[in-house]
Amino acid sequence: MLRARPPPDPSMASTTLLLPDWLIPVEPDRAVLAGHGIAVRDGRIADIAPHAVLRGRHPDAAERALPGCALLPGFVNLHTHAAMSLLRGAGDDLPLMAWLQERIWPLERKLMSADFVYDGSALAFAEMLAGGTTCCADMYFHPEEVARAALSMGIRAAVGGTVFEIPGAPPAQEMLAQALAAHEKYRGEPGLRVMLAPHAPYTVGDDMLRHLAAVAEEADLTIAIHLHETRQEVQEALATHGMRPTERLAHLGLLSPRLVAVHGVHLDSDDIALLAAHGVSLAHCPASNLKLASGFAPVAGLLEAGVNLGIGTDGAASNNRLDMLSELRLAALLAKGASGDARALPAHRALHAATLGGAKALGWDREIGSITLGKYADLVAIRLDSARLAPVFDPVSHVVYAAGREDVEEVWVGGQSVAKKLQLANSTSKSDLERIMSRISQWRLRAAGVISGTNTYLSQE
Amino acid sequence: MLRARPPPDPSMASTTLLLPDWLIPVEPDRAVLAGHGIAVRDGRIADIAPHAVLRGRHPDAAERALPGCALLPGFVNLHTHAAMSLLRGAGDDLPLMAWLQERIWPLERKLMSADFVYDGSALAFAEMLAGGTTCCADMYFHPEEVARAALSMGIRAAVGGTVFEIPGAPPAQEMLAQALAAHEKYRGEPGLRVMLAPHAPYTVGDDMLRHLAAVAEEADLTIAIHLHETRQEVQEALATHGMRPTERLAHLGLLSPRLVAVHGVHLDSDDIALLAAHGVSLAHCPASNLKLASGFAPVAGLLEAGVNLGIGTDGAASNNRLDMLSELRLAALLAKGASGDARALPAHRALHAATLGGAKALGWDREIGSITLGKYADLVAIRLDSARLAPVFDPVSHVVYAAGREDVEEVWVGGQSVAKKLQLANSTSKSDLERIMSRISQWRLRAAGVISGTNTYLSQE
Repeated sequence: MLRARPPPDPSMASTTLLLPDWLIPVEPDRAVLAGHGIAVRDGRIADIAPHAVLRGRHPDAAERALPGCALLPGFVNLHTHAAMSLLRGAGDDLPLMAWLQERIWPLERKLMSADFVYDGSALAFAEMLAGGTTCCADMYFHPEEVARAALSMGIRAAVGGTVFEIPGAPPAQEMLAQALAAHEKYRGEPGLRVMLAPHAPYTVGDDMLRHLAAVAEEADLTIAIHLHETRQEVQEALATHGMRPTERLAHLGLLSPRLVAVHGVHLDSDDIALLAAHGVSLAHCPASNLKLASGFAPVAGLLEAGVNLGIGTDGAASNNRLDMLSELRLAALLAKGASGDARALPAHRALHAATLGGAKALGWDREIGSITLGKYADLVAIRLDSARLAPVFDPVSHVVYAAGREDVEEVWVGGQSVAKKLQLANSTSKSDLERIMSRISQWRLRAAGVISGTNTYLSQE
Repeated sequence: MLRARPPPDPSMASTTLLLPDWLIPVEPDRAVLAGHGIAVRDGRIADIAPHAVLRGRHPDAAERALPGCALLPGFVNLHTHAAMSLLRGAGDDLPLMAWLQERIWPLERKLMSADFVYDGSALAFAEMLAGGTTCCADMYFHPEEVARAALSMGIRAAVGGTVFEIPGAPPAQEMLAQALAAHEKYRGEPGLRVMLAPHAPYTVGDDMLRHLAAVAEEADLTIAIHLHETRQEVQEALATHGMRPTERLAHLGLLSPRLVAVHGVHLDSDDIALLAAHGVSLAHCPASNLKLASGFAPVAGLLEAGVNLGIGTDGAASNNRLDMLSELRLAALLAKGASGDARALPAHRALHAATLGGAKALGWDREIGSITLGKYADLVAIRLDSARLAPVFDPVSHVVYAAGREDVEEVWVGGQSVAKKLQLANSTSKSDLERIMSRISQWRLRAAGVISGTNTYLSQE
């Protein structure tokens, strides 16, 4: 369903039954339906019922038995810089500014191109799909290449065109024009949306931020922005603007249900109240916040205020692993540690954030994010009956706290099987990935040239 | 090499070459040896050299090619309650006291038996081995059953016999006698050591703690004890004893290089100085500390003071996943977030804690914990050349920050292959595990009877 020109496929017209041991629909909250399955037709969820009832109602349907599996909505990775998978592990154990100035920016200056973005994005999407992520919200350069890579791999994506106003970057109007061109090009493509992605309040000026808010309203687009990632960002905003960044965005008309604030580590109670009052969603990226020592997002306070929460991995340069199962587990664990309350972000609530919360943030919750009649069949089956997960008291607990991507059995986007046992299922996607892997050593060598002076291992080569 | 009565195996007398792309010996620090492999003979590491040199020196050796893999020492899980794998996910999202009083203790009262300990321990050991853990330090009841399970599964284990002095528990002298009996029984078994495991300063009195210190000294045993897990523990100790727990252990003669302090979350700088001065090791259990909202161990301060650090998963009731790759990644990430310093616990240092640090804590560092001539060939091969891990700039970064147990290719204990691609390799271990899996539903139902009133999913059944 995601391809621009889908090949004729008669099987798509028919119905397939997916028959897991447990169905975790996410909506209604806390439901676990033992012995239930779903019928998929035309890429959407056409029926939800006990196995026997489904078979009775759809006697001609194909069947996919999923013994020992829980079937749940695919994960929505609410913040990635997919192309940065080509920089995976190129800058570890460095504070944010050293990481940016000594590694990431020099690497991007050297490597940035349409090819870099296509190859890196496709690599990232393949990794995400294999681990059960069926949708992601990206923020990077060359949005049209990110969109092409998403279509090739078959992941649903909100593609954010980054806008910067800093010396050395392309003019902001040009970057905005790229995003809008991608929006025009892919309008009507059910698997793609384009977002506007001003990098951060400290890299985009007042006029451009106001302009972006107006453009987004006019074109009905989501806006994603890094917000309150570090303490320094908040202090500098107070010094420069006399306001905290969230307050400034409120003044500029950016706060609304179409805004996804990313990170939100250094939010105080006034900031949280502003986000809640304007219906802003928050993309929580716990691993990246730890790795760059930014701190702990106030997840318990955000939930209490009613802020919609999604979960993101961030890019592979600051996380190294684009794995929503790792990330949602970490989110659930860290919320308890940071708040001192073991009841904070319980398993079912973390799973909600990693699925429906992310979908809602993107304005996509009528189409994806839960197992609900009429939504796209974006799904992941996780096998829970192996010895390493025995026994199963509560499938939701197992998905959040015990399972890993080694337990992901199969993944579907729009009813099409996209990955099985960590391997891509679609032959076109597989051959595209193989082509990229054949160029990996070239990307690696070009990047290694920038970092070999500071990396013990590379300097041996 | 681990079995009490090894079957005659002529292949053990010969030499096998393991030929990975990279060797990460852990010692010397930061070394990554590209194109090197090892020769294994009689269960030990007999040679370390470039592939071609090894082939030249050992022309008759069998070869195991490990293309795309890094070979490193197997992980040492420095704190487990292995048998609690049968309670995996039976008590999530609860504060420590509710978790203990409403779930764990009632469950243990209902289920405790030699069979429970054997089955649960074997299940846990199988999970650990498949994920690259070749040695663990356990703390539970029925130590002789834990030891039997370790021998059956082929994991190297320090088996701790728990000693409690609380109402309802068996007499402490009886529990100590069990531990010493297990010590006598398994003395000379190269894969097993028995430890004394007083539960915590708040559950064992002064006289017994002094006695245990003397017994350990006499019999040359390691002692493991939960220490400073919660703030409450420290406050109550000040009220009851007028001393912090670490200070009290110092007065009682417990602090020494044979002590493994577990958790150490609420240590202040005086506590840390005491641990360092006495050569005490610390078992850091980050996931468990987060899940029970205990807090963050002061890892940066411990390392700065020179305290030897190991990493543990804790039991499956408070972690749910007995996976050292998850745990060492979390330790490295969390140390940065908690200290506000992105350079805290860099990848190579975290890997040291998860291998040689744990071995040293157990007094086992002459035999295991690094790829060093003469040590046991306790090893894990991790495959790094898949698309989901591309590109590789630094194999150590990939092991710590990017790989998961889905990437574990093969695991060896004492030179014997014990697991391959997440499955046990030894047929006797496999059939024992199958027998246990056939009883899982019985264990689950007996446990479910205790918790069904409070679990939404179970109460649907």
